[in-house]
Amino acid sequence: MKTLLEIADILKSKNCIYILTHRYPDGDTLGSAYALCRALQLIGKKCKVLCHDEIPSKFRFMNDYVKYEEFDPEYIISTDVADIKLLGDKLLAYSDKINMCIDHHMSNKSYADIAFVDAMAAATAEIVYELIQNLGVPIDKEIASCLYIGISTDTGCFKYSNTTAKTHKIAYELINKNINLSKINSELFEKKSKEALSVEYMVYSTLEYFFKGKCAIIRLMQSMLDKAGINDNELEGIASIPRQIDGVKIGITIREKKSNLFKVSVRTTEDINAIEICEAFGGGGHPRTGGCTIEDDLENVKERLLTVIKNKYGW
Amino acid sequence: MKTLLEIADILKSKNCIYILTHRYPDGDTLGSAYALCRALQLIGKKCKVLCHDEIPSKFRFMNDYVKYEEFDPEYIISTDVADIKLLGDKLLAYSDKINMCIDHHMSNKSYADIAFVDAMAAATAEIVYELIQNLGVPIDKEIASCLYIGISTDTGCFKYSNTTAKTHKIAYELINKNINLSKINSELFEKKSKEALSVEYMVYSTLEYFFKGKCAIIRLMQSMLDKAGINDNELEGIASIPRQIDGVKIGITIREKKSNLFKVSVRTTEDINAIEICEAFGGGGHPRTGGCTIEDDLENVKERLLTVIKNKYGW
Repeated sequence: MKTLLEIADILKSKNCIYILTHRYPDGDTLGSAYALCRALQLIGKKCKVLCHDEIPSKFRFMNDYVKYEEFDPEYIISTDVADIKLLGDKLLAYSDKINMCIDHHMSNKSYADIAFVDAMAAATAEIVYELIQNLGVPIDKEIASCLYIGISTDTGCFKYSNTTAKTHKIAYELINKNINLSKINSELFEKKSKEALSVEYMVYSTLEYFFKGKCAIIRLMQSMLDKAGINDNELEGIASIPRQIDGVKIGITIREKKSNLFKVSVRTTEDINAIEICEAFGGGGHPRTGGCTIEDDLENVKERLLTVIKNKYGW
Repeated sequence: MKTLLEIADILKSKNCIYILTHRYPDGDTLGSAYALCRALQLIGKKCKVLCHDEIPSKFRFMNDYVKYEEFDPEYIISTDVADIKLLGDKLLAYSDKINMCIDHHMSNKSYADIAFVDAMAAATAEIVYELIQNLGVPIDKEIASCLYIGISTDTGCFKYSNTTAKTHKIAYELINKNINLSKINSELFEKKSKEALSVEYMVYSTLEYFFKGKCAIIRLMQSMLDKAGINDNELEGIASIPRQIDGVKIGITIREKKSNLFKVSVRTTEDINAIEICEAFGGGGHPRTGGCTIEDDLENVKERLLTVIKNKYGW
């Protein structure tokens, strides 16, 4: 694997760069991409962030931190994208042209010419923080804000087990750049719309336990979103509900994306590998946090997940 | 105010020390007390932590980090206790004998002979961290664990607006002492018993909005705890529910302690001072997080709180 200094040198030699993010974008894929985009623009590169989906409103302010430019790419990077399948249809045309991938997913599929994958990093933004230092670009308030968003999102605000001493050291350095910490934290981790709260209440009522409480499943159906009048991407915290429960080793959140198409989030305790479960359905992720997409009706989706778990762990 | 070095010198000159914590003890009052107790024992002092209430089970392991000794106190300290009223009946006998108070509550009532109050500190544990350094005691894994618990509890795991760059720097240094970070975080901020979850679900159903959504009130009644079969102190997160809601400036949680006795938590956004509201009922706290106790029936408690808010803010 190349060093971050070598990665930085390669980027310095390119002029027109696209940065691809994954679909259903979160704070890490976007924060990493926008931070890197701004850093590259500051050293005179043309650069642009692309995403299949619309940017969720709470992240949209990062768009003001970069200049918008129309150009054809000479070099294509992806940030926090473990698999080209996660790019989404609108970016599919680039899937065999990705020159460089910067990621922290152990399950990364090595689809790029050059990959820098550090599964010990709590967030891709931790890697991008060091990459920007290797580019020699001073980290300003805007870059720091993007990176803080990446790091705090992927660690559940320093709560998840991927958080390390280094994560806090980087946070200390980013906050010292005078970012609006309390506003960002309140937007990302505290604020909930009345609508989101009412959906959460509906989701709680779907909670089911399996295997003597070792597995808990909740579901989020389109009808709930319709009833509350909100969008799925305003509900980040939902997936952490079932695994929180005492005794639950596998917490599963099944989100209906459209009729008979479900996005499944799997959160596990230390002794269970979420990747193993998700790979059975063509997905991946991290040891404690995995995801996959299953096309079937709801009862079958549940049944198939429970069967994989039963077979794998003998429950 | 004395410096922490002067405070440390005073402590070094004493031999038999009690450390008092506040009732309904949280991670900060206990973490600060146990960290300081261990540090003082490490330099040969007799020292003991006292609390009116039983220590909540998730904090009880800190008891193993100190030696238990019977002795009469020569010197009495309090940690994170803003007012002697917060000591609880069992410690009331000490209330006019407190020699030193270490606290971060702006509303501290200056009841001790010597007070070190730093309202800029996110937690009393931040102050104790520096005090222990001034004592010249190396911070070991056990002290670091206690201090991390104090800091993370009072910042909602680095999420609340009191969190600063310094908070993360101290966290970095404590985590480097090899504390069991992921276990502590999961115990304090992730794990919920099935019972706690079911109470939360009941509490959600009590949510009421006032003043066009600027104030939200939830209540936690003894009957809910009885129904679920758990204790109030296993429900830390409840008080942060109402203020999270978009548009809510004052989030109030009313907890029934016994018939016609309610503990009220007030959380506010930046433009509202929670202390002002709580002081109207003899309480206090921080600008964003206050508390008070009101003896009356539930409807009157609500009515009286709403009247104070209405008069103060003209809503």
